Amino acid sequence: MPPPVDHEARRKQVAAIAARLLAKSGLEGVTFRDIAKAAGYSTAIVSHYFRNKRELMTYIFRSAAVGAVAKVDEELAAGKPMQVCVEWLLPLDEERTRDWQIWIAFWGHVANDPEMMAEQQRRAREALDLIKRVLAREYEGLDVSEQTMELRARRLLTMITGLATETVFDPQQWPPERQRAVLADEIATIKR
Amino acid sequence: MPPPVDHEARRKQVAAIAARLLAKSGLEGVTFRDIAKAAGYSTAIVSHYFRNKRELMTYIFRSAAVGAVAKVDEELAAGKPMQVCVEWLLPLDEERTRDWQIWIAFWGHVANDPEMMAEQQRRAREALDLIKRVLAREYEGLDVSEQTMELRARRLLTMITGLATETVFDPQQWPPERQRAVLADEIATIKR
Repeated sequence: MPPPVDHEARRKQVAAIAARLLAKSGLEGVTFRDIAKAAGYSTAIVSHYFRNKRELMTYIFRSAAVGAVAKVDEELAAGKPMQVCVEWLLPLDEERTRDWQIWIAFWGHVANDPEMMAEQQRRAREALDLIKRVLAREYEGLDVSEQTMELRARRLLTMITGLATETVFDPQQWPPERQRAVLADEIATIKR
Repeated sequence: MPPPVDHEARRKQVAAIAARLLAKSGLEGVTFRDIAKAAGYSTAIVSHYFRNKRELMTYIFRSAAVGAVAKVDEELAAGKPMQVCVEWLLPLDEERTRDWQIWIAFWGHVANDPEMMAEQQRRAREALDLIKRVLAREYEGLDVSEQTMELRARRLLTMITGLATETVFDPQQWPPERQRAVLADEIATIKR
């Protein structure tokens, strides 16, 4: 008898393959058949794990977001400098570029879809909370008002979102060293 | 005899109606039939002005970008403060929110389309040049290096892009007064 199928692992594997295809071609550019073919499964198996592209897209979107937040929290717990922590949110390598390509492709579809919109809002609010955790460590013991903290966190969040977006569309204009320099210039104004 | 048709005016009118529909429902949510119906024309007339949705989308995308740049340059020429100039790039009212909804919907389709991608890059580079004009006035007569100028312009550009993006997806979290406060906090670190 073959070993029992680990469905959760297979679901993740299908999603990972789909993520690579989606990042390259966008949501319309990819069919369940393409994904099945790339994964070496039948279309029926892919449909077993994800009812439709919307469900698949949301799963991939969420996984990428949760993974990025976990990475920053890990660096934070390890006492890494603010710049190092936050760099995990930027498209500085292939994997993180793919995450951002997926987020931006997802954005193109939320206008029409209240559930996808709610998912986007949850992830953005989580990202803001994450940035606040980074700043809370930075400002520990300093006299920084709640209001200033809120403004700074929002400045940094929007800057990261914009930096990543500009980079995904024009990587030549935004090589890693330039992304890092722009972030460092911002962080210098936020640190006390 | 009826007066001759002003084709350029009609093209603009069709695009303006399409922009409203696209901002609300995204590119997939709208058909040429919907646009024709809203404009009071036949689908054939709409197709006469725009060969396909891609061409229509690019036209709307470009018009909104050119309009926003012109508005900032106008404020700049009138000697308005930096904050006032730059606020024209934020989704602070219905019209500018619609512009951003259109840009973001457009982004969802550029991954797959080299021409749309090139258009996005041109507009982003123009936006960077615009921010540089704003900063050049701010830094006039001051000893600011080219490199610092470049970093500051990129910080401000990315911050605007991110602020607008976050606002479009979660307007409750980003009311106009909060957008203005976050921008002012950033500008305070950029001004000399």
